[in-house]
Amino acid sequence: MRLALFQLDAGEAPRLDRIGSLLRKARDAGADLAHLPELALPGYGAGVEALRETAAKAPELLAQLADLVAETGVALALGLPVLQDGAVRNAAVVLRPGHAPATYAKRFLYGDYERAAFSPGDAASPLVEIAGLNVGLLVCFDVEFPETVRELALAGADLVLVPTALPESEGASFIARHLVPTRAFENGLFVSYADWCGCDDAFRYGGLSVIAAPDGRALAQAGESVAEMLVADLDPSAFADVRAANDYLGELARMRANAS
Amino acid sequence: MRLALFQLDAGEAPRLDRIGSLLRKARDAGADLAHLPELALPGYGAGVEALRETAAKAPELLAQLADLVAETGVALALGLPVLQDGAVRNAAVVLRPGHAPATYAKRFLYGDYERAAFSPGDAASPLVEIAGLNVGLLVCFDVEFPETVRELALAGADLVLVPTALPESEGASFIARHLVPTRAFENGLFVSYADWCGCDDAFRYGGLSVIAAPDGRALAQAGESVAEMLVADLDPSAFADVRAANDYLGELARMRANAS
Repeated sequence: MRLALFQLDAGEAPRLDRIGSLLRKARDAGADLAHLPELALPGYGAGVEALRETAAKAPELLAQLADLVAETGVALALGLPVLQDGAVRNAAVVLRPGHAPATYAKRFLYGDYERAAFSPGDAASPLVEIAGLNVGLLVCFDVEFPETVRELALAGADLVLVPTALPESEGASFIARHLVPTRAFENGLFVSYADWCGCDDAFRYGGLSVIAAPDGRALAQAGESVAEMLVADLDPSAFADVRAANDYLGELARMRANAS
Repeated sequence: MRLALFQLDAGEAPRLDRIGSLLRKARDAGADLAHLPELALPGYGAGVEALRETAAKAPELLAQLADLVAETGVALALGLPVLQDGAVRNAAVVLRPGHAPATYAKRFLYGDYERAAFSPGDAASPLVEIAGLNVGLLVCFDVEFPETVRELALAGADLVLVPTALPESEGASFIARHLVPTRAFENGLFVSYADWCGCDDAFRYGGLSVIAAPDGRALAQAGESVAEMLVADLDPSAFADVRAANDYLGELARMRANAS
């Protein structure tokens, strides 16, 4: 699979036509999948009212995005607010040509702003197949809990997509440089972590978007402050040796059988 | 608490008299606790027979170590083989002045050598109090599983001591530089990871012993190839802000209450 991650400048939150041009850019780079940050629509810091309004029109937006996906042939993963069981959720959605959208609602809401705008989700992400890989979803703060990625790895994920909105801070830099690669390493899978950079009216973001491999290496990592597209080819078979040498899932199953 | 971590050269596996001199060195540095690598007695690569012989005489060795601890007033954590329920275990033991030893048996054995020598443990470490901190134990490979440190954090650990024997490799460097600091960060506690350097008859080790803080920073980190003592002062109250900002254990409890 060829993945195109877009680190976006929060000063220019994308509209639908902008996402169309990003999908065409991904297609021209030969990508199977384009990955955008948390709340790409309407922008992370757009405010509680704007988040609720976007959630109300999410079905219409998703139908328009599905048209763009069908037109370009490139799958799209992004964050946006949706209504689910009558409540506004901070969701990650994957759109694939010829398939219904797959949706995950963030379970670990972060801070007062998100808690004012959203109700937390209560279920793990579905897994969907893209270019031969099993793909799962998380949103931002979720990935800081090892339980969430482990759950997807045990379900068979090869790749976890994490739209994020990481504020600029020393702690945020630790997450992008150390914690996210550790999630990939300790589960033997790929993690794509798509962040904002720059600032909107409410927040300043730290960039450092990263595509981490099963051996913990960053296949690509963005800078702190500039919008850019990262492209990486994700081939699980290239990491078969690493996964066999560090068979964490197999060892965990054996330990639990031994302890019970 | 002042902690003295000893990264040891595997070419000079310590005997009892050597451990006595390390404890005096720790005492002279004002340390409350000295932390040595995995299988400090008789040396990680000493061979299956030597490991079994040491396990058979572990009660006598521990009594002699307890005398050294009482003499110096410095607690000691180290790895050594012990007999437990009639089986040889790869154990971490903490000796404190005036207390019985606390023992943990490694649950995740690594590779053919360890599996030939040891039976895996099946229980979490006890927590013991040293200089006001709650201290738990793991051994080497155990810490690569996020479940093990989470378990100790949920039980109330402030510090996890990990005697280790990490071979020299690119993957090992990732563990010492990224994974171990992530364990500290994601649980808001201290992790001390005491490795060998140099080589014995069987293995070459990668050093990079580290004392990681609740914000993920390395308070001290050893080089790859030289024996050295790391000293750090561990004060949980200095990280109250970080633990409040990233209240992973509290958020996890809330998420689970929400999902059930």
